[in-house]
Amino acid sequence: MIKEGVQGAAAVAEEDPQAQSKKAQKKQQKEAEKAAKKAEKQAKLAGDQKTEEEDDFAKDRYGVAAMVQSQEKMDRSLVLVKDLSPARADELIWLRARVHTSRAKGKQCFLVLRQQQFNVQALVAVGDRASKQMVKFAANISKESIVDVEASVRKVDQKIESCSQQDVELHIERIFVISQAEARLPLQLEDAVRPEGEGDEEGRATVNQDTRLDNRVIDLRTTTSQAIFRLQSGVCQLFRDTLNKKGFVEIQTPKIISAASEGGANVFTVSYFKTSAYLAQSPQLYKQMCICADFDKVFCVGPVFRAEDSNTHRHLTEFVGLDIEMAFNYHYHEVIDSITDTMVQIFKGLRDNFQTEIQTVNKQFPSEPFKFLEPTLRLEYKEGLAMLREAGVEMGDEEDLSTPNEKLLGRLVKEKYDTDFYVLDKYPLAVRPFYTMPDPNDPKNSNSYDMFMRGEEILSGAQRIHDAQLLTERAMYHQIDLEKIKAYIDSFRFGAPPHGGGGIGLERVCMLYLGLHNVRQTSMFPRDPKRLTP
Amino acid sequence: MIKEGVQGAAAVAEEDPQAQSKKAQKKQQKEAEKAAKKAEKQAKLAGDQKTEEEDDFAKDRYGVAAMVQSQEKMDRSLVLVKDLSPARADELIWLRARVHTSRAKGKQCFLVLRQQQFNVQALVAVGDRASKQMVKFAANISKESIVDVEASVRKVDQKIESCSQQDVELHIERIFVISQAEARLPLQLEDAVRPEGEGDEEGRATVNQDTRLDNRVIDLRTTTSQAIFRLQSGVCQLFRDTLNKKGFVEIQTPKIISAASEGGANVFTVSYFKTSAYLAQSPQLYKQMCICADFDKVFCVGPVFRAEDSNTHRHLTEFVGLDIEMAFNYHYHEVIDSITDTMVQIFKGLRDNFQTEIQTVNKQFPSEPFKFLEPTLRLEYKEGLAMLREAGVEMGDEEDLSTPNEKLLGRLVKEKYDTDFYVLDKYPLAVRPFYTMPDPNDPKNSNSYDMFMRGEEILSGAQRIHDAQLLTERAMYHQIDLEKIKAYIDSFRFGAPPHGGGGIGLERVCMLYLGLHNVRQTSMFPRDPKRLTP
Repeated sequence: MIKEGVQGAAAVAEEDPQAQSKKAQKKQQKEAEKAAKKAEKQAKLAGDQKTEEEDDFAKDRYGVAAMVQSQEKMDRSLVLVKDLSPARADELIWLRARVHTSRAKGKQCFLVLRQQQFNVQALVAVGDRASKQMVKFAANISKESIVDVEASVRKVDQKIESCSQQDVELHIERIFVISQAEARLPLQLEDAVRPEGEGDEEGRATVNQDTRLDNRVIDLRTTTSQAIFRLQSGVCQLFRDTLNKKGFVEIQTPKIISAASEGGANVFTVSYFKTSAYLAQSPQLYKQMCICADFDKVFCVGPVFRAEDSNTHRHLTEFVGLDIEMAFNYHYHEVIDSITDTMVQIFKGLRDNFQTEIQTVNKQFPSEPFKFLEPTLRLEYKEGLAMLREAGVEMGDEEDLSTPNEKLLGRLVKEKYDTDFYVLDKYPLAVRPFYTMPDPNDPKNSNSYDMFMRGEEILSGAQRIHDAQLLTERAMYHQIDLEKIKAYIDSFRFGAPPHGGGGIGLERVCMLYLGLHNVRQTSMFPRDPKRLTP
Repeated sequence: MIKEGVQGAAAVAEEDPQAQSKKAQKKQQKEAEKAAKKAEKQAKLAGDQKTEEEDDFAKDRYGVAAMVQSQEKMDRSLVLVKDLSPARADELIWLRARVHTSRAKGKQCFLVLRQQQFNVQALVAVGDRASKQMVKFAANISKESIVDVEASVRKVDQKIESCSQQDVELHIERIFVISQAEARLPLQLEDAVRPEGEGDEEGRATVNQDTRLDNRVIDLRTTTSQAIFRLQSGVCQLFRDTLNKKGFVEIQTPKIISAASEGGANVFTVSYFKTSAYLAQSPQLYKQMCICADFDKVFCVGPVFRAEDSNTHRHLTEFVGLDIEMAFNYHYHEVIDSITDTMVQIFKGLRDNFQTEIQTVNKQFPSEPFKFLEPTLRLEYKEGLAMLREAGVEMGDEEDLSTPNEKLLGRLVKEKYDTDFYVLDKYPLAVRPFYTMPDPNDPKNSNSYDMFMRGEEILSGAQRIHDAQLLTERAMYHQIDLEKIKAYIDSFRFGAPPHGGGGIGLERVCMLYLGLHNVRQTSMFPRDPKRLTP
């Protein structure tokens, strides 16, 4: 049986079992008491309702529904909020949505009902379809609860500016609570979408990042989060669709690896039965093996792990790698061209199909539209260096770019070429990994490149050494223990085509495309040295 | 910088540094000697060639090419083997391929040149385009080496049965080695594709699984492996395309989790900076959180980890999960219908677009075509039980299916309904995890299901409990430490729609669709309690 995850949640942490069991007992008792109290309260509510029911003609038109436990198949189709338009005027429809806000006003209660990024105004008013008890009930439904409503769609004369469905409202005739939210929310959605700074000026709250992440289930409901992660889903789809069209094969590479096959610093250790193993820092060895195994062009999308104690806006300990590797014929620029074209297809796809999401994110986090050229701008490292020096930076020829210099160069490139995306080619050999192919025309250079979005690196790649002998030499030069990389080197002993590739960080691409400033905003459940939950 | 994987392969294992360094030195010395010998040998070869060159009119038409190091961009287009047909007769073309076999015969040398699953016969013959030295050179190229050839395409009168391109052969005019394979291969490709049993009869070798897996780079080059993993890539694509069309959103869930949020037995421990963490046994908590966060319908494709010490044909410690979770309206059969339709779309896509791959695998591993019904057959657990009892099996009403009983039931279902795919619905509550929604109409049953292909389970799923109170009660009944699953339960406190889902094992789907018998055949780099490499 493939068992699913949460089951058998027996002790994992190795605490004193007795202490733990006492603690657990106490907790469970507390939980049980809480549950009892809640049940009591509900009974009271039900009782209250009962006394009022006697003179309530609408008593069957509202209430807390029995838990949906698949009691029966119901022949009721639910309309989506986004499909509500004047075309449906005067139809009586059912829909399921969250109570976004509610406001009682005399004999009426105005609700805003929400589905993802769409919402609509709804009204329960005392009349022949609703009693005053029903209006009171509606007014008391806690925010974020899920309700089923039967309602008549009405065209409105004046646009409802505060809702996505501006031309209609709903006149509710029945309302049932499907799932009740606790009254006290850990954060308010309207605070969570307030543009930075705006809150300060008007004395209104914004929500800090840790509160958001601690309560991610609610934070992800905001229009901004919905837009970010729908766009992220789109990036993955565009990446794969483009590569599938180019004849790439998708591969699945192992994440648990033995030390010997890959090695490396900043690696997480896993206890593996009676031995130790490691979490892959990239699928590189495996995608190269696939090239040596004749798959010709491969890609993979999956988690990569970095045990770096970096607490910055752009480092995660676990992120999603969009990895590419391909054989080429004579020049690694064939690889660069494939990758940049893939990026351009992604940018175009986002621009053409995700405008709503982009606009939504921009409302909270304003940024300039992302600019790119066709074909992609490719500069040599030494050209970049010259631009930086001209701007007053002092740097050696074989020195790597610091983060501030990367950003500065990004600004200089933007000024000069009007693009937010470019390739920096031919890095100094000295700053690249041992498996990087040296430049045949200049021993200090290498056939390697980085790609940048808005001045931040999103991809690092190179032509790889495909010759076991040269690879051995280069590893020795780097004083790498050959024993530890034997499997890697051996992969190239039985005929290996020239090849190259690169790894793209998904969260960075989304962050930088949208002009956001923290990679945690584009990771659903980010992991960093200080955060492992939720 | 996003650094790629193999770099900085400094010590990971904590050995005595001095001993290690000595060992490393010795190794490196040995490697250096080996390299020197090889260089010497190559120099000798080059020398030999030189003495013969003087009277060799074809001396510029063959040789070992300089390593492709992107010296220059070459304006030469390479033709693919699969595109070679009589339509190109008498064209002079360039192509790059592996030397699959070579056989010298007097003044001729016959080569079979291979690209993935395609191959073509090629001939170098002494004449005005090739000298006897050139023929000798070609005959000496080691198998699996990669060569560039310039050749004239010739139509043949008699079909070449042993090649995929049966109607043409190549008359080679130039041949250069691009990457030389070592002469001694750890396994022969022709042995690796020999149907099981056939080798025994004819006294010819087959390759055992460990040899294959130890030398995966070569084993993956076989037509069978190429077909299996191209089909696997297709399964992923079909899965996602189908779900994207249905409005699902792709999500990325973390693999490193804190104990408290998920818990569970059979979990791998990771050391995480100064604390410990665990590898996710499924993305279930996270996909459920996404449902509670209004993503409505989500899927993810990614590794899942099981620290089970099971050494069977169908268990891996790391496999690829195709996971689905969705909100539904009134009955969890909406979820079953979505999943079974997705599976049917995959089966159809494979049947319609991967016939070549299926046939290729069948040549080595014969099996019956995979059968499925539309709509998918859904049986209740008690019906399955009745069929088993009728066949003589003794089982209690609330007992889980053993593996042999699963297989037997698969055979009974196939006989009765002529399908290799079906759903078993309404498992006894007692054999399912605590978060499974009980059946409202029968307290001993649950709203849960498994799906089977050729009698083996490929998916386990259920309606989940979306109510924090009921979830608490069920966890307490299962004596689960509530503290450890607090984050899980809290996810449902702020309004949660009814929802359900399931997790599919990619490797199992591929294995069972193709009628293979070991999940290691459909995992590129399988992980089990005894295997961590390559």
